[in-house]
Amino acid sequence: MSRQGNRAGDPRKVNGELFTLTYGALVAQLIKDYENDEQVNKQLDKMGYNMGVRLIEDFLARANTGRCNDFRETADVIAKVAFKMYLGLTPVVSNWSTTGDEFSLLLESNPLTEFVELPPGHSNLNYSNLLCGALRGALEMVQMDVDVRFVQDILKGDNITEIRLKFIKRLEDAVPVGED
Amino acid sequence: MSRQGNRAGDPRKVNGELFTLTYGALVAQLIKDYENDEQVNKQLDKMGYNMGVRLIEDFLARANTGRCNDFRETADVIAKVAFKMYLGLTPVVSNWSTTGDEFSLLLESNPLTEFVELPPGHSNLNYSNLLCGALRGALEMVQMDVDVRFVQDILKGDNITEIRLKFIKRLEDAVPVGED
Repeated sequence: MSRQGNRAGDPRKVNGELFTLTYGALVAQLIKDYENDEQVNKQLDKMGYNMGVRLIEDFLARANTGRCNDFRETADVIAKVAFKMYLGLTPVVSNWSTTGDEFSLLLESNPLTEFVELPPGHSNLNYSNLLCGALRGALEMVQMDVDVRFVQDILKGDNITEIRLKFIKRLEDAVPVGED
Repeated sequence: MSRQGNRAGDPRKVNGELFTLTYGALVAQLIKDYENDEQVNKQLDKMGYNMGVRLIEDFLARANTGRCNDFRETADVIAKVAFKMYLGLTPVVSNWSTTGDEFSLLLESNPLTEFVELPPGHSNLNYSNLLCGALRGALEMVQMDVDVRFVQDILKGDNITEIRLKFIKRLEDAVPVGED
């Protein structure tokens, strides 16, 4: 499969267990490297952010969705298109704030944590924090400043995994490519 | 999708670009952590080994292949079943030694290195060395001691990526599960 051919057609898929173990190796390495869970969370968020910034271009090309008219539409695209495309699952969009600027993604399962147990003494670790960073980075590239964080995690004994997204502000449009 | 349902049915697939970027973050972290490329290579091999040891059980359950009769059969299963299942590609099995104990896997593309460029000053880095470790670990679990290493890599300017596998010896059978 040529590079061009791959990008033009269906994206290549890899086995979820291989991904889970690779991600686990990354988190384990960060736990070795950093002093506390908060620093690991921050590092995972930062790595995710860098990924989100890169993934969004490919996502927009493939998903073929137009510009979202409001945050509710954004929520649907994230849950039904983005999560489906990247992780093969569709979280439930729920817990909207009355002002419509906050919602939660509810995940009954999470490929990043399959067969994972938190090591003892890491109760503050947001193991899957890369996801928050990736969402934050991708949304920033479509001019949305959004706060993204875990509020519940099955890994920590919660009944469900919940990621909370809070719209902060619309960012200034970047200069479109091709104009100057 | 329940955990049981997932394991019994088709394995979950994740997007290849997400995997590529996650693996890239892991390698970048190791480059920060270790003094030289040889140590990074060793660490990637070790991580891969630990993954291979875990992945083989699931692989045997899914692939439904019997015990291989010889190293040629092993080569075919690795290329046509394992690589296909985990990375979505089928390398060419080639360059057999006359004694039949060594062969190469030739990869025209490699999802681990898509859109990757080696950073300057890392000419000894075997970026995808995790694959060698994973093959070594998985093969050890089916009682084969096999040396696995990169001999060519498109990332380093070679025309093709070549992984060389050399059969060393058959290991003593472990006590089968359920007998004692």
